[in-house]
Amino acid sequence: MDDFDPALERLLSRIEELGAITDTPGSLTRTFLSPANLQAARQVTAWMKEAGMHTEHDTGGTIRGILPGANPSLPPLLLGSHLDTVIDAGKYDGALGVLIALAALEATGPLDFPVHVLGFSDEEGVRFHATYLGSRACVGQLGEKMLEIRDAAGISLGEALTREGWHEGATSFSYENSRSKGYVEVHIEQGRVLEELDEAACAVSAICGQSRLAITLLGQADHAGTTPMELRRDALTGAAECVLAVEKLARENPELVATVGKLDVRPGASNAIPGEARFTLDFRHPVDVSREKLLGELLAEFSRIAESRTLQLAWDLVQANAAVPCDPPFTDQLLDSAEKATGLRRTLPSGAGHDAVMMATVMPVAMLFVRCRGGLSHHPEEYASPRDIAVALRVLVDFLRSL
Amino acid sequence: MDDFDPALERLLSRIEELGAITDTPGSLTRTFLSPANLQAARQVTAWMKEAGMHTEHDTGGTIRGILPGANPSLPPLLLGSHLDTVIDAGKYDGALGVLIALAALEATGPLDFPVHVLGFSDEEGVRFHATYLGSRACVGQLGEKMLEIRDAAGISLGEALTREGWHEGATSFSYENSRSKGYVEVHIEQGRVLEELDEAACAVSAICGQSRLAITLLGQADHAGTTPMELRRDALTGAAECVLAVEKLARENPELVATVGKLDVRPGASNAIPGEARFTLDFRHPVDVSREKLLGELLAEFSRIAESRTLQLAWDLVQANAAVPCDPPFTDQLLDSAEKATGLRRTLPSGAGHDAVMMATVMPVAMLFVRCRGGLSHHPEEYASPRDIAVALRVLVDFLRSL
Repeated sequence: MDDFDPALERLLSRIEELGAITDTPGSLTRTFLSPANLQAARQVTAWMKEAGMHTEHDTGGTIRGILPGANPSLPPLLLGSHLDTVIDAGKYDGALGVLIALAALEATGPLDFPVHVLGFSDEEGVRFHATYLGSRACVGQLGEKMLEIRDAAGISLGEALTREGWHEGATSFSYENSRSKGYVEVHIEQGRVLEELDEAACAVSAICGQSRLAITLLGQADHAGTTPMELRRDALTGAAECVLAVEKLARENPELVATVGKLDVRPGASNAIPGEARFTLDFRHPVDVSREKLLGELLAEFSRIAESRTLQLAWDLVQANAAVPCDPPFTDQLLDSAEKATGLRRTLPSGAGHDAVMMATVMPVAMLFVRCRGGLSHHPEEYASPRDIAVALRVLVDFLRSL
Repeated sequence: MDDFDPALERLLSRIEELGAITDTPGSLTRTFLSPANLQAARQVTAWMKEAGMHTEHDTGGTIRGILPGANPSLPPLLLGSHLDTVIDAGKYDGALGVLIALAALEATGPLDFPVHVLGFSDEEGVRFHATYLGSRACVGQLGEKMLEIRDAAGISLGEALTREGWHEGATSFSYENSRSKGYVEVHIEQGRVLEELDEAACAVSAICGQSRLAITLLGQADHAGTTPMELRRDALTGAAECVLAVEKLARENPELVATVGKLDVRPGASNAIPGEARFTLDFRHPVDVSREKLLGELLAEFSRIAESRTLQLAWDLVQANAAVPCDPPFTDQLLDSAEKATGLRRTLPSGAGHDAVMMATVMPVAMLFVRCRGGLSHHPEEYASPRDIAVALRVLVDFLRSL
């Protein structure tokens, strides 16, 4: 990495500097339109200017730095990630993707084509419980309905943008279908797979589709001392069978991850047989047809379990998001660069959502994952090593040069 | 039942009358030393007097009616049950045992030996969260330590007995080892076994011993989307295996009943892999050595499950009560009478506790269970049919006559 050592050092120190900009001294929190989030956006704008970029921002606090290309008629390449965080966050989730884009361009200097670096003001959705507000606005999907969402204080998103937004010199920038080369986002993995494989970075195959269900089993509450086993209709033993069926199905289907994260039992007394068990199901797969097929198999198994135990089964589909495949040719180009740096053409699906989900609605997207310690994210101990960040930077620089 | 039809009718109407004496108009509640509980005791005392008994009460509100025997030097036979109830109770649990004893003696008239009918003032333990206060006092086991227990208002049991007790003309009566023929209690089954068998009544083999445990499994909380199945240490899937192991063991051992009634998961979010699962175990068996052996097997299985999933397992023995076997020769005499009425010599273990547990510390005990609808107890819809109560009355009358 001889030729961009100074860029790497600057990147690492900027991650620290940005990580210190917070609404809550002592821990890191920057939510949509908060003072610290706007301060972070202004700081990154200043760095963009230092790198020779023309900069812009919108009233939502999302920033854009434009590095003109030698041939200004070529469609731009987009790089970026988000500048907001969860509460008590780590300093890599989001920030890394924005700052590594800057560092890569400092290493390459201007290219043939223009490059836009985007710093989105909201991806985590902490304030309005609606994710991707920054990238959503950039692709023109912040509709009237969404502007009516209210935060905990009762302020609507529309009101917040009107009253609180970063108005001084604001512009609005939006991307339309097929007018860009594509969007590339570098992000920490937020999982432990790269750590287990002992690999620094890899490309992303797809952002998994997700089904979220609420499931209820009804049996009969009875006295734990006086009801023999054969007369019981225990909702919890039924739920236990379902929990293990979820695990078995996901173990048998390597791309599936499925989780029961919440389980409540009623009446919930040590001497009462549970008459009711309610649990959640989080079901993710990179391929939508497979997700739907496997979910159907699982629900059939739940029905069989309920029937065999004379329990009543009900389920409610709380949410379903389609998978977002990364663009195969675009990802292939990224893998060419990754292979030079790591010797491997590894891809992983992303179980978590990213701004790339929104950008993919109007352009090809590719993503690069960077190993993070213990798979930890959304936590102050979130950490990616300088060595792994250097590998990611090398991949990105090579990718920019070879495009 | 020709010869005691009037006794049966009186019994049924007294059950209604007693069931209307309550601290909470509209539902049935009579707790230790409450106005309704004392009123019920006074009412039953009046009925005892009508039946030619000499009556007494203690400051705790427990009553005793003595029907002298032709031979007063013979040791007395004891009959009875409790007059207190849970909150929003049914009218058979407890009351039936006291009133059927009265009815049986009205049918038989005085016998060779004296008979004591006992109406205990507390068996349910609602007020002081300590059960059997009435029968405990009668067998001299209400020690100094117990007098310090406090109710929700902060009043100690000792203070309650001093300030609130039924002092006017109170005596104290207590039974010592082997000075009585024995204690016989009639009680609704509080389970559905007799209903399933379509039988009116049966004897009790033993009051089950019980172990209560609190179990904790610790794994690792992780992101439900980004953690592949093979990298998980999910505390809930481990707990699900344990729940099914409990059920399997109890199904394989007919006298065992075992229940997980409460299960809590943390962090308890739909998108978080559970890092912690805490659950209760209620484990009952009529034979102590079997209970201890089976519990050992189950905990070994829990350990195996935890080890195979790299979870940390901890358990806490919250409570252990020894089984109380009913006296075999005494129960055999009761079965002789039961066989005449039902054609069967059926016995069942009792999963719930009864005053007989206390009485058994100083004398032989036997119990007769009466079928109750749907196994329901501690509920306003608790019900035993006149026909089944008539069978129980016939058994008790025959038993008294044949002793």
